[in-house]
Amino acid sequence: MQQIVDFILELDKLKAVTRKVRPLGLERYENSAEHSWQIALLAASLAPYAEAPIDIHRVIAMLLVHDIGEIDTGDTIVFATEGWQERKAAELAAVTRIFGMLPEPQAASFLALWREFESGETPEARFAHAADRAMPVLLNLANQGQSWRENGISHERVVRRIAPPIKAGCPALWNYLEARLEEAREKGWFGA
Amino acid sequence: MQQIVDFILELDKLKAVTRKVRPLGLERYENSAEHSWQIALLAASLAPYAEAPIDIHRVIAMLLVHDIGEIDTGDTIVFATEGWQERKAAELAAVTRIFGMLPEPQAASFLALWREFESGETPEARFAHAADRAMPVLLNLANQGQSWRENGISHERVVRRIAPPIKAGCPALWNYLEARLEEAREKGWFGA
Repeated sequence: MQQIVDFILELDKLKAVTRKVRPLGLERYENSAEHSWQIALLAASLAPYAEAPIDIHRVIAMLLVHDIGEIDTGDTIVFATEGWQERKAAELAAVTRIFGMLPEPQAASFLALWREFESGETPEARFAHAADRAMPVLLNLANQGQSWRENGISHERVVRRIAPPIKAGCPALWNYLEARLEEAREKGWFGA
Repeated sequence: MQQIVDFILELDKLKAVTRKVRPLGLERYENSAEHSWQIALLAASLAPYAEAPIDIHRVIAMLLVHDIGEIDTGDTIVFATEGWQERKAAELAAVTRIFGMLPEPQAASFLALWREFESGETPEARFAHAADRAMPVLLNLANQGQSWRENGISHERVVRRIAPPIKAGCPALWNYLEARLEEAREKGWFGA
């Protein structure tokens, strides 16, 4: 029991890892813990639109654990182009440490979910990636492009980065976003 | 698709609903969105200790939606003794409004999860309640009783309020907490 308690208190640190988007109406930046909660519910709501039949429960579990490595590495904006492999190696070391705080069956189960998400090969992982990539876009579309403007991110860069994973996991969501992103471009909500 | 997007943006408001406990090492108060994420992972980690066989996926889904009514009602500390029924009626109205933003199958599914949690009658709901009640206690035990001292909450009041639901859902967790709470009492970490 003490191992589980130590693990869950270690997870508290994800509440201090900040991302680049601000929650709607708030001045502070979003943290990775509340982001993980929101994308789990986005996936649950979107499940009928998945590109292939999925086990939505595994998708939800993956989304709840996928950012835990950031406790050691911090968040990197999805548009960072360099150092991606080093970062992924550091995240693997981080989750190996953090999940390793748990008794064996739970540790192995969380690590398997994390690896499945990272590999992006199963229908569940592809759908999970679509939800993860779409969420900051939805917030920016409701936020006049706040994090795009603050970080100098262009329309082309957003589309290049998110279109493939969202199309692969949830094509109907991409159809929706493509039109909204074009409207945002016309309104000048992008940087650069 | 627009209905799902409107729903998920409405959920953003839960990031602004603050609770009484502070995340470890942070000055700000915890919000109900990050709390929901953390208790879902607490339940997943604790699953082998459930009092009865459970479908852990339904527990996780319940925990992710159980606080959404607070978007309209705000959080009430678990030790509030008055107005509980009025509050529950207001929360039902809130989740009926918020889940009602979704297309029918998803709306009905989320509302069923919320009602199952509130009724507290299934093994899954009892286990979910145990995780929900235990989490602020675990944070207070790691925080020298911060929210107990700030709100004048006594050891007796904590035990009276949390022992029954935690025993009912996860007896091994109660055994652990009972001893830790006694230590905290000796250290003077309670109010009143």
